[in-house]
Amino acid sequence: MVAGTRMSAPFHTVALVGRYADRLVADAMLAIAVHAVARGVDVLVDAAATVDFPATVRRRPEAALASEAGLLVAIGGDGTMLHAARLAIGTDVPLLGINRGRLGFLADISSAEMLERFAEVVAGRYTRDVRYLLDARLTHPSEPERRTLALNDVVLQKGDAGRMLDFETWIDGRYVNTHGGDGLVAATATGSTAYALSCGGPIIEPSLDALVLAPISPHTLSDRPIVVSRQCRVELRLVARAPTQAQVSCDAVLLGDLHPDGRLAIGPAEHHVTLLHPPGYDYFRILRSKLHWGHSVRHGNPDR
Amino acid sequence: MVAGTRMSAPFHTVALVGRYADRLVADAMLAIAVHAVARGVDVLVDAAATVDFPATVRRRPEAALASEAGLLVAIGGDGTMLHAARLAIGTDVPLLGINRGRLGFLADISSAEMLERFAEVVAGRYTRDVRYLLDARLTHPSEPERRTLALNDVVLQKGDAGRMLDFETWIDGRYVNTHGGDGLVAATATGSTAYALSCGGPIIEPSLDALVLAPISPHTLSDRPIVVSRQCRVELRLVARAPTQAQVSCDAVLLGDLHPDGRLAIGPAEHHVTLLHPPGYDYFRILRSKLHWGHSVRHGNPDR
Amino acid sequence: MVAGTRMSAPFHTVALVGRYADRLVADAMLAIAVHAVARGVDVLVDAAATVDFPATVRRRPEAALASEAGLLVAIGGDGTMLHAARLAIGTDVPLLGINRGRLGFLADISSAEMLERFAEVVAGRYTRDVRYLLDARLTHPSEPERRTLALNDVVLQKGDAGRMLDFETWIDGRYVNTHGGDGLVAATATGSTAYALSCGGPIIEPSLDALVLAPISPHTLSDRPIVVSRQCRVELRLVARAPTQAQVSCDAVLLGDLHPDGRLAIGPAEHHVTLLHPPGYDYFRILRSKLHWGHSVRHGNPDR
Amino acid sequence: MVAGTRMSAPFHTVALVGRYADRLVADAMLAIAVHAVARGVDVLVDAAATVDFPATVRRRPEAALASEAGLLVAIGGDGTMLHAARLAIGTDVPLLGINRGRLGFLADISSAEMLERFAEVVAGRYTRDVRYLLDARLTHPSEPERRTLALNDVVLQKGDAGRMLDFETWIDGRYVNTHGGDGLVAATATGSTAYALSCGGPIIEPSLDALVLAPISPHTLSDRPIVVSRQCRVELRLVARAPTQAQVSCDAVLLGDLHPDGRLAIGPAEHHVTLLHPPGYDYFRILRSKLHWGHSVRHGNPDR
Repeated sequence: MVAGTRMSAPFHTVALVGRYADRLVADAMLAIAVHAVARGVDVLVDAAATVDFPATVRRRPEAALASEAGLLVAIGGDGTMLHAARLAIGTDVPLLGINRGRLGFLADISSAEMLERFAEVVAGRYTRDVRYLLDARLTHPSEPERRTLALNDVVLQKGDAGRMLDFETWIDGRYVNTHGGDGLVAATATGSTAYALSCGGPIIEPSLDALVLAPISPHTLSDRPIVVSRQCRVELRLVARAPTQAQVSCDAVLLGDLHPDGRLAIGPAEHHVTLLHPPGYDYFRILRSKLHWGHSVRHGNPDR
Repeated sequence: MVAGTRMSAPFHTVALVGRYADRLVADAMLAIAVHAVARGVDVLVDAAATVDFPATVRRRPEAALASEAGLLVAIGGDGTMLHAARLAIGTDVPLLGINRGRLGFLADISSAEMLERFAEVVAGRYTRDVRYLLDARLTHPSEPERRTLALNDVVLQKGDAGRMLDFETWIDGRYVNTHGGDGLVAATATGSTAYALSCGGPIIEPSLDALVLAPISPHTLSDRPIVVSRQCRVELRLVARAPTQAQVSCDAVLLGDLHPDGRLAIGPAEHHVTLLHPPGYDYFRILRSKLHWGHSVRHGNPDR
Repeated sequence: MVAGTRMSAPFHTVALVGRYADRLVADAMLAIAVHAVARGVDVLVDAAATVDFPATVRRRPEAALASEAGLLVAIGGDGTMLHAARLAIGTDVPLLGINRGRLGFLADISSAEMLERFAEVVAGRYTRDVRYLLDARLTHPSEPERRTLALNDVVLQKGDAGRMLDFETWIDGRYVNTHGGDGLVAATATGSTAYALSCGGPIIEPSLDALVLAPISPHTLSDRPIVVSRQCRVELRLVARAPTQAQVSCDAVLLGDLHPDGRLAIGPAEHHVTLLHPPGYDYFRILRSKLHWGHSVRHGNPDR
Repeated sequence: MVAGTRMSAPFHTVALVGRYADRLVADAMLAIAVHAVARGVDVLVDAAATVDFPATVRRRPEAALASEAGLLVAIGGDGTMLHAARLAIGTDVPLLGINRGRLGFLADISSAEMLERFAEVVAGRYTRDVRYLLDARLTHPSEPERRTLALNDVVLQKGDAGRMLDFETWIDGRYVNTHGGDGLVAATATGSTAYALSCGGPIIEPSLDALVLAPISPHTLSDRPIVVSRQCRVELRLVARAPTQAQVSCDAVLLGDLHPDGRLAIGPAEHHVTLLHPPGYDYFRILRSKLHWGHSVRHGNPDR
């Protein structure tokens, strides 16, 4: 889903998002704002931002930023990108990620080259990278439904240390398995390199329309990650046992508790998120960098 | 890709394939032949088969069986199914798998119920399950190309114990990684539960048009399986080092050696293979059975 | 540490421990009590037990059972064995484990043969199997120390779904690593087949005086389990970040929270626990049974 | 087993070992020889070495180097250290490892500081680090026994790509398991960070007198690494099937083939190898460096 770089229309209004309480982030936000304003680009920021922006920078409620800007720029790490993605959902505004330090999987412009790369993208030189989302619904007979979208993952996880969760997975109405363990991660291709990877899941190339279900520290050693079409409708149900607490979070934000008579339903979302990348973007280069693939560890065997 | 069971036209000619040197297999082949002949179904077998079949059973060269029968019945294990799949390639003849013992992933009819299930399928009661294939081409500047198709996997593997392979992966012309280790398995969804699973790969639901690249005992611990679209064109190249032997096999049959100036190209095959399942087939039930998911191992922790 | 079976002195007083609210457990407790009383063996049970034991069965506070009996019999699963082990600590009383259902790693007498096996052991025919314990101390500058012993494991684990823990490991005063992830399991050989196994740890043969430190869903893929001498003194410290909750549990019982300026110290305990096994005990047979090693999964590859 | 640094007697004669066909290694060997000769230290090298050493450097058959020198210096990678260890076995000569490039687990002096570190050690400032060895014996009713020692590992491995090995493990005469897969690594603590780590084995702290048995790409997913006392006597036997080739190698050097009626016996060796480390040696620092533990991979989750 990454189209080749071509010349597109320039952006006239950009919104900046970041955790401005972090000094490095605040400095980067300010530098980008100054740079943009000097080039005649309208800049919007969160009304609550404590950064001393130029007077021409407009302050708006954070929730309104995406609908009023042509481009949403997230400055920070991948966590900030996840936050910006939630702001962008339901609009068509694309996202650009600038890293305050090391490269991220999502925030793939380093701080060292941020002004140059920002200028390129604002001028219309970029590739579009459409990432799909999951729709998570937490239901219970006696409570209102809780619902949200996730770019990375929907996680069911025990809330009490020491207690194991017992739960069932169902896919498109068919029973799959009963799991004992710490929980399960349902990750998109985008999220396959986040928490799911720590749980033994595979890397999924972002253009593949797939979902991975990775059990967390499963009791049964053959309870392995399953990759299915993202169009599948996955349902998780607790198996009634002694009282356990089972928490559901989406992109690391708590959605609520799953109860024994409730359901967690995960399916494809109608919305998607569009990432922009400056020219030269290469997904595999980011993988190599993040996973230290360059540094071939020759741990002591056969290279006499 | 598993269509619901419906009534189809009955089969009039079936070919039986199996490793008849195995007594259990020979007995099962004979029982099915007798059963089929009694119901007026034409039966074909390999001309070289040493089994004492009824006189009406026709003997044909094994390579001709698929083109002359309406249904190819493999009796044995999943290995026999892989063999039968190779016979069926290029024809439209579907496969039915009968297990001489425990259930297999592909040979999913147990010997206990084989006559009953065989009768159902021959009568036209079955579901069709289309499985795609990989096309593997092994090339070298000074040798003729070697090429074959694989239903399960294409495997690059060191030929010498003790020596590590160094090789590069490329996907659709883009460099992915340089690997050190015992090799790599490129598996279809069908093959994801075979060798690739032992190498840490995920289970891939068979209807997902995907391919997993799973490194074998990789030197770098972050060198993890990658799932990509099956439409991808994967290329493997050896990195020149001290002389190493790198063998390529497809569905466990040796294709040849990969040399430092050769290439192993893996892509989607034009052909596919159609499996038939008797009514009631459930992929997840087979997973649960093969992976002992029913037997939840409660290894000693929290169930006081 | 498993001595060969030999004739030892018979037991005259046995205490029965079990979760008597479970009907199967209650029935088994009663059957053993009746069997023992009929043979002149004194039987002690928890004063709070709701089971209708014979009148000659003496009821004592649960905490007093171990010191007044010659043998502590745990009826239930491995969780009941862990509970009984805590009762036995500090006394010399050995433990016998009877499983109400499937075999456990610790409760290795099945309900089918419990009376026969119980009789053998009470008569003095058994092997002794000494298992060592870990000593866990949770300290904080402004709070009293919390301390307990563990037969299986000491676990540091995040208390909030969605937040990662950052913590350091130190061994014998030397810095080892800074981990990001869900936590860490420090397991004895006995506990190596419990939660640590789900976290990717190895099986440790019980007679090896070793400890495994297995990170839980670690962020860094090369953050692998380390096996060290059990004499080592391990210390875990949180790395200060945004407020996170880090819970410490021992044998699945909560000990308390680890705070950023606190320490979790894990070392060898002075006490040990002695398990008794009926004649014919074989650790590897239990491994094979619990891990389904008998059922060789031939997942579809080369057995044509 | 790493004693604290203290002043010991200086070395008067050192032997240099390395793969001198490698230009970087030859240069390093020459620099060390010149440095040593200038300080009045006798230097011995392999008679076959093609390096143009100073005239006072004495050339001896490689096999005689260890018995005539007080210190054996290996220049290269961990493979060269394994080779030097084999030369040193049966003598008391200690080993010093100098890396031609990146640090190794065994060759832990970097080329950048080699002259300074070499001088310290030769002057008597070092710590001793005793590493134990495995004794591997390959027997067959009709062939002479083949026997060797291993510092890292004894590996049983399939010789044919595509065929699985079936073999049994026995420990101290007790049956453990029947394995299907690519083979098994029996590694010392020293070898636990080499091939065994790629096979899912744990890291074993070098002072722990233990052995890990790690199956290679095992068919059964619960067939996990087992850690046992190094005093154990391990035996591997092939299960007779269709002709398969099973190769045995020790420290990556081929020992021979295991046949269906042969045995591979692995036990503790009488000999050991002594490594010397310059002051400041820290095993965990090497682990952190080799496994990139410093570079905490924050793969995209919760650090907004």
